[in-house]
Amino acid sequence: MSAADSVRSRAPAGGPARRFVVAGAQLGPIAREEDRASAVARMVAMMTEAAGQGAKLVVFPELALTSFFPRWWIEDPAALDAWFETEMPSPVTRPLFEAAVRLGVGFHLGYAELTREGRRFNTAILVGPDGAILGKYRKVHLPGHRGHEPWRPFQHLEKRYFEKGDLGFPVFDTGWSGVSGRLGMCVCNDRRWPETWRVLGLGGAELVMLGYNTPQHYPLAPEHDHLQYFHNELSVTAGCYQNGLWAVAVAKAGVEEGCELIGGSMIAAPTGEVVARAASSADEVICAEIDLDRCAEIRANIFDFARHRQPQDYGPITAAAGG
Amino acid sequence: MSAADSVRSRAPAGGPARRFVVAGAQLGPIAREEDRASAVARMVAMMTEAAGQGAKLVVFPELALTSFFPRWWIEDPAALDAWFETEMPSPVTRPLFEAAVRLGVGFHLGYAELTREGRRFNTAILVGPDGAILGKYRKVHLPGHRGHEPWRPFQHLEKRYFEKGDLGFPVFDTGWSGVSGRLGMCVCNDRRWPETWRVLGLGGAELVMLGYNTPQHYPLAPEHDHLQYFHNELSVTAGCYQNGLWAVAVAKAGVEEGCELIGGSMIAAPTGEVVARAASSADEVICAEIDLDRCAEIRANIFDFARHRQPQDYGPITAAAGG
Repeated sequence: MSAADSVRSRAPAGGPARRFVVAGAQLGPIAREEDRASAVARMVAMMTEAAGQGAKLVVFPELALTSFFPRWWIEDPAALDAWFETEMPSPVTRPLFEAAVRLGVGFHLGYAELTREGRRFNTAILVGPDGAILGKYRKVHLPGHRGHEPWRPFQHLEKRYFEKGDLGFPVFDTGWSGVSGRLGMCVCNDRRWPETWRVLGLGGAELVMLGYNTPQHYPLAPEHDHLQYFHNELSVTAGCYQNGLWAVAVAKAGVEEGCELIGGSMIAAPTGEVVARAASSADEVICAEIDLDRCAEIRANIFDFARHRQPQDYGPITAAAGG
Repeated sequence: MSAADSVRSRAPAGGPARRFVVAGAQLGPIAREEDRASAVARMVAMMTEAAGQGAKLVVFPELALTSFFPRWWIEDPAALDAWFETEMPSPVTRPLFEAAVRLGVGFHLGYAELTREGRRFNTAILVGPDGAILGKYRKVHLPGHRGHEPWRPFQHLEKRYFEKGDLGFPVFDTGWSGVSGRLGMCVCNDRRWPETWRVLGLGGAELVMLGYNTPQHYPLAPEHDHLQYFHNELSVTAGCYQNGLWAVAVAKAGVEEGCELIGGSMIAAPTGEVVARAASSADEVICAEIDLDRCAEIRANIFDFARHRQPQDYGPITAAAGG
């Protein structure tokens, strides 16, 4: 049986929990004025569609509840706060958690987190089919800039609006009936850094969930605009192959408030092969049956870390000065 | 001007040394009985051809002087020694050095090194157009196995025949008139490990030279045989993009002693784009004009290491236990 056949075939209902259907729920644009209730309703509709296709886990994008607000310079503290969640679930996000319980699916959600202590993070959570939050990740590699740069057609103020994540790259064991594996998360720009994938891989991750809001136009090097999707796919598929794990990479897509986002959500195998890909810039569910035991094809062989890695030669990677 | 145009255009003769033509000199099979003099003659012919195309630097493959002998179980110490070089240059390899001086080109050569102390390495050297050895690298990530595994159609005994390299991943400044840059090397399986590229990138490498002998058939996971070339390209292009550097990756290609090698030598840009690729499984020269200043398009922006890396979160990568 070829790798592709193996991925595409369907396990019997009630089959082993290492093999299950995962879904990516790509979001089309969310307008600045669109409220969270509307975004949540779109997500619940996709979660329902995914469950109808047998999905046990649904991955939503980065900052999925609102428009991508770091593109705007916001001076008023109250106006900035309004983009953040102060509790999870909240009255407005509770329908996602209720749908998870009703449908028997877990989900991954990205949102802007404001803690009781007033700290701000670009956060993702993993929620089980019992509606409980199993894991949390806070974005480590914040792109963009801190000051107002009016020359840009849009800002990218993640370094201003968020602190660097303080949770490292944790990996979570699911004990759910339909999903039994080690799951990790990262967010958007994190996926471009091989260190992200390697730390997750060394932590035993078998599936990495990630969301992204990636503009087609990169103001610092517009001569690379045509390469944005290529760089996304290159980063995700290399991370999968070099660590022998699955990934579900899910976009906010389409033209959002005048900013074109690349879309192209995908599910990639431990071989680096893309096994499912979105074909629109709108709300779209993609699904694939994945088998976490296939990680061993890579991790027990060419990338058997214990036999082949040479950490004593990697010192500069963790040295204090970047480069 | 698009990135591709920039790469393909030709600088004026005597132009700035940051912009020059580089060549990959892919070797077709070398039979077990073919002697070094014959292999060297093939390489001198390709060096001459490359110089005729304006190349200032020519990259030859891993273990370029002989057949890929780690595929054979060799018990007789003298028979094993016969595959190794005990001096460089030697009478039989001197024509390469003489050609470099005559043609005014530098070159990169992979070979099996036996030191005076009896140590064995899978080595690559960088030789200047003055015929002097400027730099040496010894392969860190040795693939394969130590014991005889007769079930395999061919052995892969690098872990038996070589010690792990003891030079780290050094980067060398060329002071040549035609090539002014920071050059690094790795060998074959090293290219699959993102740590290799990252350590070279942190060391300031702007161009990485590497050779490989990669079989189409991978006995441990034959279901991936059709992916061998994809994995090679994925590893090289991801390494280039994620570190903002050029690479010249050069194969021993074709069916060598019954073992099919993947070939497909390539030159890749800091954007991850492949700008030249071999189209045969035989001796073949590929050339591209490259501009080392283009590394900044990546390294000063999306992958500005000093601004964006987070080494404090990468600890597991250098922890003693692999995984």
